[in-house]
Amino acid sequence: MSTPSNSTWSQRFESALHPTIAHFNASIDFDIALLEHDLTGSQAHAQMLGKTGIISAAESEQLVQGLETIRTEYRQGQFQPGVEAEDVHFAVERRLTELVGDVGKKLHTARSRNDQVGTDVRLYLRDQIEQIRQHIRAFQQALLTLAEAHVETLIPGYTHLQRAQPLSLAHHLLAYFEMAQRDWERLGDVARRVNISPLGCGALAGTPFPIDRQFTAEKLGFASVYGNSLDGVSDRDFAIEFASAASLIMVHLSRLAEEVIFWASEEFRFVTLGDSCSTGSSIMPQKKNPDVPELVRGKTGRVFGHLQGLLVMMKGLPLAYNKDLQEDKEALFDTVRTVTGCLEAMTILLQEGLTFRPQRLTAAVSEDFSNATDVADYLAAKGVPFREAYNLVGKVVKTSLAANKLLKDLTLDEWQTLHPGFEADIYAAIAPAQVVAARNSEGGTGFDQVRLALKRSRQRLES
Amino acid sequence: MSTPSNSTWSQRFESALHPTIAHFNASIDFDIALLEHDLTGSQAHAQMLGKTGIISAAESEQLVQGLETIRTEYRQGQFQPGVEAEDVHFAVERRLTELVGDVGKKLHTARSRNDQVGTDVRLYLRDQIEQIRQHIRAFQQALLTLAEAHVETLIPGYTHLQRAQPLSLAHHLLAYFEMAQRDWERLGDVARRVNISPLGCGALAGTPFPIDRQFTAEKLGFASVYGNSLDGVSDRDFAIEFASAASLIMVHLSRLAEEVIFWASEEFRFVTLGDSCSTGSSIMPQKKNPDVPELVRGKTGRVFGHLQGLLVMMKGLPLAYNKDLQEDKEALFDTVRTVTGCLEAMTILLQEGLTFRPQRLTAAVSEDFSNATDVADYLAAKGVPFREAYNLVGKVVKTSLAANKLLKDLTLDEWQTLHPGFEADIYAAIAPAQVVAARNSEGGTGFDQVRLALKRSRQRLES
Amino acid sequence: MSTPSNSTWSQRFESALHPTIAHFNASIDFDIALLEHDLTGSQAHAQMLGKTGIISAAESEQLVQGLETIRTEYRQGQFQPGVEAEDVHFAVERRLTELVGDVGKKLHTARSRNDQVGTDVRLYLRDQIEQIRQHIRAFQQALLTLAEAHVETLIPGYTHLQRAQPLSLAHHLLAYFEMAQRDWERLGDVARRVNISPLGCGALAGTPFPIDRQFTAEKLGFASVYGNSLDGVSDRDFAIEFASAASLIMVHLSRLAEEVIFWASEEFRFVTLGDSCSTGSSIMPQKKNPDVPELVRGKTGRVFGHLQGLLVMMKGLPLAYNKDLQEDKEALFDTVRTVTGCLEAMTILLQEGLTFRPQRLTAAVSEDFSNATDVADYLAAKGVPFREAYNLVGKVVKTSLAANKLLKDLTLDEWQTLHPGFEADIYAAIAPAQVVAARNSEGGTGFDQVRLALKRSRQRLES
Amino acid sequence: MSTPSNSTWSQRFESALHPTIAHFNASIDFDIALLEHDLTGSQAHAQMLGKTGIISAAESEQLVQGLETIRTEYRQGQFQPGVEAEDVHFAVERRLTELVGDVGKKLHTARSRNDQVGTDVRLYLRDQIEQIRQHIRAFQQALLTLAEAHVETLIPGYTHLQRAQPLSLAHHLLAYFEMAQRDWERLGDVARRVNISPLGCGALAGTPFPIDRQFTAEKLGFASVYGNSLDGVSDRDFAIEFASAASLIMVHLSRLAEEVIFWASEEFRFVTLGDSCSTGSSIMPQKKNPDVPELVRGKTGRVFGHLQGLLVMMKGLPLAYNKDLQEDKEALFDTVRTVTGCLEAMTILLQEGLTFRPQRLTAAVSEDFSNATDVADYLAAKGVPFREAYNLVGKVVKTSLAANKLLKDLTLDEWQTLHPGFEADIYAAIAPAQVVAARNSEGGTGFDQVRLALKRSRQRLES
Repeated sequence: MSTPSNSTWSQRFESALHPTIAHFNASIDFDIALLEHDLTGSQAHAQMLGKTGIISAAESEQLVQGLETIRTEYRQGQFQPGVEAEDVHFAVERRLTELVGDVGKKLHTARSRNDQVGTDVRLYLRDQIEQIRQHIRAFQQALLTLAEAHVETLIPGYTHLQRAQPLSLAHHLLAYFEMAQRDWERLGDVARRVNISPLGCGALAGTPFPIDRQFTAEKLGFASVYGNSLDGVSDRDFAIEFASAASLIMVHLSRLAEEVIFWASEEFRFVTLGDSCSTGSSIMPQKKNPDVPELVRGKTGRVFGHLQGLLVMMKGLPLAYNKDLQEDKEALFDTVRTVTGCLEAMTILLQEGLTFRPQRLTAAVSEDFSNATDVADYLAAKGVPFREAYNLVGKVVKTSLAANKLLKDLTLDEWQTLHPGFEADIYAAIAPAQVVAARNSEGGTGFDQVRLALKRSRQRLES
Repeated sequence: MSTPSNSTWSQRFESALHPTIAHFNASIDFDIALLEHDLTGSQAHAQMLGKTGIISAAESEQLVQGLETIRTEYRQGQFQPGVEAEDVHFAVERRLTELVGDVGKKLHTARSRNDQVGTDVRLYLRDQIEQIRQHIRAFQQALLTLAEAHVETLIPGYTHLQRAQPLSLAHHLLAYFEMAQRDWERLGDVARRVNISPLGCGALAGTPFPIDRQFTAEKLGFASVYGNSLDGVSDRDFAIEFASAASLIMVHLSRLAEEVIFWASEEFRFVTLGDSCSTGSSIMPQKKNPDVPELVRGKTGRVFGHLQGLLVMMKGLPLAYNKDLQEDKEALFDTVRTVTGCLEAMTILLQEGLTFRPQRLTAAVSEDFSNATDVADYLAAKGVPFREAYNLVGKVVKTSLAANKLLKDLTLDEWQTLHPGFEADIYAAIAPAQVVAARNSEGGTGFDQVRLALKRSRQRLES
Repeated sequence: MSTPSNSTWSQRFESALHPTIAHFNASIDFDIALLEHDLTGSQAHAQMLGKTGIISAAESEQLVQGLETIRTEYRQGQFQPGVEAEDVHFAVERRLTELVGDVGKKLHTARSRNDQVGTDVRLYLRDQIEQIRQHIRAFQQALLTLAEAHVETLIPGYTHLQRAQPLSLAHHLLAYFEMAQRDWERLGDVARRVNISPLGCGALAGTPFPIDRQFTAEKLGFASVYGNSLDGVSDRDFAIEFASAASLIMVHLSRLAEEVIFWASEEFRFVTLGDSCSTGSSIMPQKKNPDVPELVRGKTGRVFGHLQGLLVMMKGLPLAYNKDLQEDKEALFDTVRTVTGCLEAMTILLQEGLTFRPQRLTAAVSEDFSNATDVADYLAAKGVPFREAYNLVGKVVKTSLAANKLLKDLTLDEWQTLHPGFEADIYAAIAPAQVVAARNSEGGTGFDQVRLALKRSRQRLES
Repeated sequence: MSTPSNSTWSQRFESALHPTIAHFNASIDFDIALLEHDLTGSQAHAQMLGKTGIISAAESEQLVQGLETIRTEYRQGQFQPGVEAEDVHFAVERRLTELVGDVGKKLHTARSRNDQVGTDVRLYLRDQIEQIRQHIRAFQQALLTLAEAHVETLIPGYTHLQRAQPLSLAHHLLAYFEMAQRDWERLGDVARRVNISPLGCGALAGTPFPIDRQFTAEKLGFASVYGNSLDGVSDRDFAIEFASAASLIMVHLSRLAEEVIFWASEEFRFVTLGDSCSTGSSIMPQKKNPDVPELVRGKTGRVFGHLQGLLVMMKGLPLAYNKDLQEDKEALFDTVRTVTGCLEAMTILLQEGLTFRPQRLTAAVSEDFSNATDVADYLAAKGVPFREAYNLVGKVVKTSLAANKLLKDLTLDEWQTLHPGFEADIYAAIAPAQVVAARNSEGGTGFDQVRLALKRSRQRLES
């Protein structure tokens, strides 16, 4: 393998970089991902240099064309800088000078690698955030489609993984829709802080050339420019904020993943896993494993780790740019890749990998005491103080458990012995579908509420 | 110490909690911090119960008054629940029943601890965020005051901790102003996602009672209500988002802290530390230590740790509420305390603990090659391609270093031998103040730009 | 509240600490936990000063006695330094001088707070590690007792939370015994690196006094002394190593916690939770929640967070002591407290909170395809290549699933149609107890192996 | 790109994996790094199968040879499994069957991917740890060589980055030697817990085949075997322990990195950076940047992040193997790569990138008050209580600062006015070299102590 040189700055240097050090320093392996953004950023810079008269219009045009040629070469696989290039930015500058001659050496006028790299990373991340937001939308769509099919499918609701109260399955799925909605909105906030141009901040202090930062910002679609050049070249808040938003996406996916793993277990049997989303065992022929949600859950730590890595990188760094910042890229790229992959995989899982088993779910909501609160509410609605009603029902549950009975098995006499307020309508009040229907408070699982929520969710996706 | 009982739910239970387990489970030690928020939340709930007719107006009033009495008792130190209370919410409910009799048992109608606690935490955090934002404003004010006094004070600018280009000290300080501005804005975004009411979500599924969630939300100043009850009781995104924003505040403070520590060192001597912000050594009588910035830097990891702790807590948690969530509080409380303390301490340090030493700073910007870029820019402005000019200056620096000379020491002859483009105005162009003044691009360190930035910053604080 | 002063080093200082800063710097709130260790360390130091003639024997004796008096006062609640004391070390020195007069001022001869604090923390942690190791032993004992009662109780074994192969319940429990054994051993390794004396390293460079570090090390039970004074005062590896070992303990406890939560669910019903380890719901009278394992699982992130916090604290700190290091204490103390509490709670849970339900477990191991591997193994043992046998059984499972049959329901004819190698002994080979018994390879779940493992585990606890 | 199939377990499956899911699940991209370890592990397994008669000796030999052929093919670049192979283990099994025919299908008898992968990862990590320990030795060697050349070179010692007491530069460098020594030892402890064989644990429960785990363990150089099969297939403690030890290595390197960055700054000028280890700026021709230590410092967070990622991955995972565990590999591989690269780069930096500047260092130790403690010690040695002496010197420092004098500039009269105990030997006592020489307590910076330490360090490297 050839070795990166320090020839770009060699006039002040007498001897070459140690080859091991050169490889250690080089970022070309990963920052090649920024190549097209680098070209785009450089084209805007070159146009601005021409527009402001810092270079001539003809020179500007030559630079823009040369950069476009590199783009074409790259897309055709003809431009593949190796580690000797140190980084993608030098690689481009060198190739440009080969292509357009000495004018290529003017591209870096009034610019530094510090503001250049910062620009590239922001352009990259802005695009990626947009794509991730679309993946979130697809994930929400898949949740919604499933929810719409399951308004009246009941599923046990849990707290502490103990059955608590039965739910509309649609309501359960929509909880994840809401989380994803926050993720989508949060990424929107992050995008606002990503979409600020550092171009023109120079190495750290600005430049004496009469540049026009608003022009390049506008060309590149940035909403504004950094107001302080030191801040502009050394700010990585946006990367950390993105990693934080990504971590929350992973939190949400890991929660759903955990549930799917439960649901697919022999004990729950709430879902059947599709073959297209499961794998087997190398040794146990009966196995069908929920690899997708497991892997998603397993990748959660990876994203948390990147967030921490970025925070640690920034801790205590003096102004302005320090080489430490080079470490932002791999963390960022892998976070993007991981979150994207997990969203895609979970979306496919929802679309074609999960079949809910209505019979099993119906059985589940009928065989326990998850309607006990409704008995207490029944009494409270008749004026018994809630805490008293609650205590009374606690006793009933204990007695019933001992007698191996469910609440629906108590006779009216038995009910009335417990409390004179019970009447024949107690049976209807504690039937699972009624228990669900009754919780019709705003945002509750009552079917009317769920239908409203579905409608609202559909509107959000369509807006 | 007395022991918490499980008497609140004892009807279904036959034996008492093991005392060690009772202590392990209890949260009263720390959630006492939520007491007033709990009272406020309960008062709104009680009013709603009356307003909707779930309880009578008289009962509602009794509850509201009883809760107010507890608030008074608490403020007067007469209400101090111990560990036997398990948590602050039960403590309040019990005391209320002592105060107002059986009607106290109606307070919990149509409510669960899950939505109750979630409400309390959000009320707490909303207040704290507001206070932290004010601390950020005070910190910005201190930076700005200092910056306004130092527009024309020059300080070396660094990249890689190597002197790069001289700066206006005001420009340097304003970089931190900008970071703080993002912190302030980011907390505003977080506050939006904190300020949503989970009250009325019940245990997980809503409630059959005809509650009015908009009413309680409005009473409590929430901007909206959670749209899905499962999400409402199990969402801790807002806490994580806050911890993430807090981590970024600590990143910024740790960077400034690191710089102050440098500046106060014998090697830099850019500042003198005030006695009111320094400490000595137990053994070395000459020492004056920058404890404040060191401690701030040291506390950075603590906040990152809380962020990680919260993320880990949430990873893979199935819906809806799980006891794990109790762990959010101490992390949150300590994050608030730490960030608040660090902002306060750094603000005081800026206000009265730092005196810049102009003589030393002037010397610093005159004794190095940080004007080398200006020589390259000088040539580039005369049409020499930047990369060529850069290479030429690299050679000059090398020769000068060997001759133990600075650039300002070169004769005009020497300059012209290097390149015919140099003229007598080269000396003015590379004088430190001119070097700074020249970088007048938008957001740069040029004095005009800095004055604009000060004005803009002042307006932000006043808006 | 009174305010800490900087009077200890005030001769070089002209004005007092700002009260807010004084509180910010003060550590007395938490380092009071080190008080007795500080006294012990100081007594050893005082004895050494006398033994080496740095002070007189009489002075040495006075100091030792004075320190013992403070210990008594502290234990009787008479010595309670407040925040004005700044830290516990100054508080002791001041009280000592009150008690014994001017000779108290000689205690700090040839010592610095840096080596003093380092000594205290190590003494503290050494003690705590010993106690945690005993808690681990108690936890292992509880696991072992339970395992011994359940050698022949079968439980489904899982991979991917899918039933894989049936197990001896004892074997399952012993997996946690093994993890705990590693924790116990690992803490032993950590303890070796904790138990090194920094006393005598001075502020950073050693001391000109003719001290005897071996003497104080021996008095304090340290196995050796730090060989480099700079390292001695700034090393916090031992704290990080401890936090890392603690994190692994939490990993293990969180895994067991997760399983208990599953087992206690309505879907698994493998265990009944004891009332003494469960809690109810404020609103759902039927609930019995596994708070203990949930809270243990929830506290996992807290310990990971402390580990991260300590690592971040140390990142990039120049030599030698920096105030940042003060932040080690709260992280360490809370880690100790958390791990201790979780071990205790889980031990009690095992001892009295879990009752396995044999009937339900027996049913569970009989109702699925977790004996499928045994069919493949059966054929492989008869010479059919494993991969072929495996594929054949995969087909059988698919057919049986479709026919709603289990493997035990196939007739011998059906078996032989599948493969002529099947004989009547296939039924015995796939009966759950036989399936378990057969896996008698070293470390496997076969009953003979499990009995050996129980014996070995018992021996470990008794050694 | 071709797509991985689920054909290996397809008999129970009806439809193929979704191609996106197949890619999401596949690990071949990174676990190719385990290929040779997989071959080695499989060869030992095949030999054992033959030795125990589970397969014939001839079959065993065929398998071993076939695997060796694959090794040769791989080394020659002829065996390059793509993503369609899903993972490296299936790729090998398939190729083997192509090479040796049906007997290849017997390789997996009495083995599962779970114990197989666990074996591979441990073999990999055992090798890497050994290599990292050698890199640590080289790093220590470089430190030692530098230290040996600088016993009598003085350098300011710092606490709080304030000058505290002058040091022998060798003493300063040896502090890092000690940290590295702990790293080396710690990795030795980790290696003990890595070097345990899970082979033969099967999928989770052991196997009915009469395998010989001691045989394979011995063949593969493992010191022992896992005693519990569930633990054996699901334990990742060793990976976390390694990541924790790696994090401490990074802590130490980041501390040295921070110091080198200081030392190379214009303000310190304690070292000159060699051209072979520095880089320039794209825009500032005078710059010579300490990229190596900056990048090392920047990579610290990355390793901390991997540690956290692994911990999070394991949190709350039920027994036994779960797909989440696949995520251990990339974290592990990158940790190995990062730590190795950083150790190499820092070693080269020490060897050829740092030249200390004795003149500048001499000036630095002569121009401050870092001999103040020696004045206090001087008096204390004459019987003045330390705290009194300390206070007196505090006053002297304050007066001298005001008078712009150093301690060495005070006249004997002035000294004696301060305290009658001062005599003419005070000047010798506070000369920098004497100040260093005097701190001759065990582990101190006194030259005699440093020479002892060098000798001891040399012996460690040679042992």
